[in-house]
Parts: sequence; structure tokens; C-alpha cells
Amino acid sequence: MKKLVVIAFGGNALLRSRQKGTYREQIDNVAKTCQSLTHLVKRGCNLIIGHGNGPQVGNVMLQHEAGSQVFDLQAMPMDFCVAETQGSIGYMIEQGMHNILIQEKIQRNVITLVTEVLVDKDDPMFNNPTKPVGPYYTEEKAKEFAEKTGSVYRADPKGIGWRKVVASPKPIQIANIEIVKELSEKGYIVVTAGGGGIPVIRKEGYYYGVEAVIDKDLALALTAVQVGADEFYILTDIPKVYINYKKENEQAIDKMTIADAKRYLAEGQFAEGSMAPKVRAAIYFVENGGRECIITEAGELENPEAGTHIIQE
Amino acid sequence: MKKLVVIAFGGNALLRSRQKGTYREQIDNVAKTCQSLTHLVKRGCNLIIGHGNGPQVGNVMLQHEAGSQVFDLQAMPMDFCVAETQGSIGYMIEQGMHNILIQEKIQRNVITLVTEVLVDKDDPMFNNPTKPVGPYYTEEKAKEFAEKTGSVYRADPKGIGWRKVVASPKPIQIANIEIVKELSEKGYIVVTAGGGGIPVIRKEGYYYGVEAVIDKDLALALTAVQVGADEFYILTDIPKVYINYKKENEQAIDKMTIADAKRYLAEGQFAEGSMAPKVRAAIYFVENGGRECIITEAGELENPEAGTHIIQE
Repeated sequence: MKKLVVIAFGGNALLRSRQKGTYREQIDNVAKTCQSLTHLVKRGCNLIIGHGNGPQVGNVMLQHEAGSQVFDLQAMPMDFCVAETQGSIGYMIEQGMHNILIQEKIQRNVITLVTEVLVDKDDPMFNNPTKPVGPYYTEEKAKEFAEKTGSVYRADPKGIGWRKVVASPKPIQIANIEIVKELSEKGYIVVTAGGGGIPVIRKEGYYYGVEAVIDKDLALALTAVQVGADEFYILTDIPKVYINYKKENEQAIDKMTIADAKRYLAEGQFAEGSMAPKVRAAIYFVENGGRECIITEAGELENPEAGTHIIQE
Repeated sequence: MKKLVVIAFGGNALLRSRQKGTYREQIDNVAKTCQSLTHLVKRGCNLIIGHGNGPQVGNVMLQHEAGSQVFDLQAMPMDFCVAETQGSIGYMIEQGMHNILIQEKIQRNVITLVTEVLVDKDDPMFNNPTKPVGPYYTEEKAKEFAEKTGSVYRADPKGIGWRKVVASPKPIQIANIEIVKELSEKGYIVVTAGGGGIPVIRKEGYYYGVEAVIDKDLALALTAVQVGADEFYILTDIPKVYINYKKENEQAIDKMTIADAKRYLAEGQFAEGSMAPKVRAAIYFVENGGRECIITEAGELENPEAGTHIIQE
């Protein structure tokens, strides 16, 4: 049986902050990322791919806001917006991956699922939404929307304006995970849980979308655990995890146990909103039966030794 | 083995022209449509569901246009926009279907695929794009966009302005159709080929998105043929197909052979852009091995005899 590998990479690998975000640029960025992933395919791995959607869902929310201003269209909540990005990003990855496999003469199919991810309706994060999403508004507009939609808006600390803030609850179940596992074991490259998944809660037995953002590394860590993946790759924009990052005594880490990782986290070695959630996702995977999590950048995937390897002990 | 049924229904069943299109309205419309589909599940059918996206992709294009005006964001081409609607509409159907099954105490899973649909790069329709999509522009703007993007813009016959026109090529292959078949035969309710599918061509071996719209009834007819469906339902807003529609001698049709259907089509009995493409999709299904196509409205599904049945002879 082939090694089963789950990969998470950021939405900013596809929609880069220093580019205009044209269709051509996005397609080219996808092609580069997919090219890197073929190294894993060539090493005989079965692949499950999950992507972030930070810049993309931000744009979707801006487009909804602009659409309401210019054409009086309805702006939609987070679950709907995340679903839109799963369609568009998933499509680009499916096509990019397919084309690179054709170029490399590798026979593999690629399939993309729209993925709901269940969170606990009583997750304590819902009492304290902190993740700012979408456009900036005036205080007046923000309060009007809050009244109308029940969403929470807060003044941005930088004083630029008011923004919607949503909760970032823990993922507890990936929809259709049994099919994700089955298809990947058949050799299908499966794209799933894009943007951390469409956040849904269960209430009196029924499912409802919620205004939330699920951390994509954590959603993919859960995916990796639920399919029993051998390895979990978290791709970012640096080749390894560092301690004393950007200080004189900066040190790249080749291998760290989860005990090390927890100690470094406690010491504040990893920035919140950046490396810290990745290390937590790595710990989650390894503590729940995963053999190894590798944090590295896509360009390093050619080398199996590359990156920081997080292991049990 | 259970009967395998493919269903196509219009995007306007979910986003209605006389509503504002709020999230709540859309979720409620989806619930109603899904409620109707459960009659087929109760009759022991396996289900593949495809939806249109006319009003939805129109809104997405308006939002992209507004986003470029207000926030200087990039407007994306049709393939990307269709992919967005597959995510959002697919998600709403998956959740709506899931909830109604829970209510009815029926144990079935629902899964949604992002679906590319291959069209022929030499399809003659590409030489004559006629399907208007997205917002109206001034002649000047339209010509500027045409120059910049290579898209085709034409003056609207009603004189309202200029609009992008895209081709409507024939679908020739549904991506991952073998998995659609396999999952549906396992009892999964599969949502696929939304909006007629994301239009892609193959050129020198590689796949590329194109500015086109695939007729969703035809894409679902092809899906039905490729999975070997027993029945193909095309849902619309009237209970049956009529000849002499809205005339004094109007007559509802209970059953028609494909010879009848072709004759009526030749007589111009069915309106283009409305019933005619549905009847053509029905003919395509039955001519390619399908046993029966039923054109009716969702509310009639309770009754197995309802609607117009199109059969071989």
C-alpha cells in the first residue's frame, strides 16, 4: 500500500499579496505549487490536498460588499463565501494538478469535494469572536449590519474602521471523510476541506452554516487523523521552523518531538496567526496517531529530508 | 439494484426573480426543492443531482464587476465564476438534502463535487458566441474589456447596453464520472455538473478553462448517459410539456416518443432558451440508451405518473 499523505498549504501561495491577482497569475501560481507536489506523487504517495483561502475569501467578501453598493445585491455570510472559494480554488488546483501530471506522464485522477466541516455549537470561541474578516466599515454602517444580520463587528485596533469578526472554532468532523480516504487509497488525488472547510454546527439534529472561520491547518490535521495518514505536510513560505526567529541566535529545527514543540510554544517562540497554529496542528496530528508532520515550503518537497519534522519522541 | 436517477433543476428554483435573494430565502428554496426530491429517495432511487446557475452566476459576475469598480479587484472569467457557484449552490443543496433526510429519518449521505466538463475546442459554437452573461456596459467600456481580455462583447438587442457574450458548446465528457456512478450506486446522493459544469477544453493534451456556458440540461443528460441512469428528470416550473402552449388549443403531453418530440421541435412548438433545450436533452438521453426522461415540476414528484414522459417509442 502506498504512503498516504495529507498536505495543507496557504491561500497566499495562489493569490499573492504583491500581485494584482489576475486569472493568469493565479493559474501560474497554482501550476508552481502543483509542480512541487508531484515530487510526493513520484515518491509513490497517495495525496489529499487542502488549501487555505485567506486572501480569496477576503476578496469574495469585498465583492459581495461592492455588489450590494453598486447593484443592490445581497452580501452573503461566511459559510456561503467559504463555499464559493472551495469551488474556485478547488477547480484551479484540480486543473493545475491534472495538467502537471499529464506533463510528467503520471496517470492519476484528481477530484475536488465541496466540504462541510462540523464544529461544536457550544465551542467557547463562539462567545469571543476575534478573527476579523472582510471589508472595513464606518462605525455607523457596522452597527447597522450588526443589527440587521446578527453578526459581530468591532473597531479595528489600527483605527482604520470597523470589521466583522467571526469565531474560529475547533473542527470536530470532516464531511464525507470515508470517501476522501477511499478515493485517496485508490490513487485519486483528493482536494478537500478548502479554507478549513465550510463551518457548520449541528442543532437539534440538523445542520446549519455559521459565521466562523476554521483554521485550515487544524482542519487538515483532523483530516489526516481521520483518514489515518502516514504523513502530514504543512507548507508555508519558509523551509523550516526556527527558534529565536530573526534574532542573532536564530536556529533552524530539523526534528522536534511534540514535547519540544509544546515547550517552544509555551516559550512564545512561534508567532500567533503564523507559525504557532501550524505547530499546534502538527502536535494534534502526531498526538492522535500520526507518525510525522513536516513543516516546510513547497519548493523543498523534492528532498525527503527537507523541513522540520515533528515526531512523537 | 436500486433505480439510478439523474435530476436537473434550474438555478431559478433556488434564487427566485421575485425575491431579494437573501441567504434565508435561498436556504428555504433549497429546502423545498430537496423536500420534493425525497419522494424519489422514498421510491428507492439512487440520486445524482445537477443544478443550473443562471441567476447565481449572473450575480457573481455583477459582484466581480462591482468589486473591480469599488475595490480595484480583478473580475474573473466564466470558468472561475461557474466554479464559485458550484461551491455555493452545491453546499446549500448538500446541506438542505442532508437536513431533509434527517427529518424523514432516511439514512443517506450527500456529497458534492466540483465538476469540470470537457467541450471540444473546435466546437462550431465558439465561432459564434451568442449567450449574453453578466452586467451591461457602455460601448466604450465593452470595447476596452474586449481589447484587454479577448472576450467578446455585443450590443444588447433591447438597446440597454453592451454585454459579454459567450459560446454554448456541447458537453462531451463529465470529469470523474466513474466516481459519480460508483458513489451513487453505493447510495450516496451526488451533486455534480452544477451550472452545466466548469467549461474546459483540451489543447495539445492540456486542460484550460474557457469563456463558455454549457447548457445544464444537456450536461446532465450526458451525465445520465455516462452513468447509465434508468431515468432522467428535468425539473422546470410547469407540470408537463405542452403543445400549442398558451393558445386556445393548448394540450398537455403525458407521453411522447422521440419521433414526436423531434416533430414538435421542428414545428417550433417549444420556445428556445426555455422548453426546446430541455426536450433536446431528453431526446439525447433516450437516443443514447436511456429508458425514460420525465419533464415536470418539483412539486409533482410525489406522483410517479406525473409530468411528460419521453420514451424511445
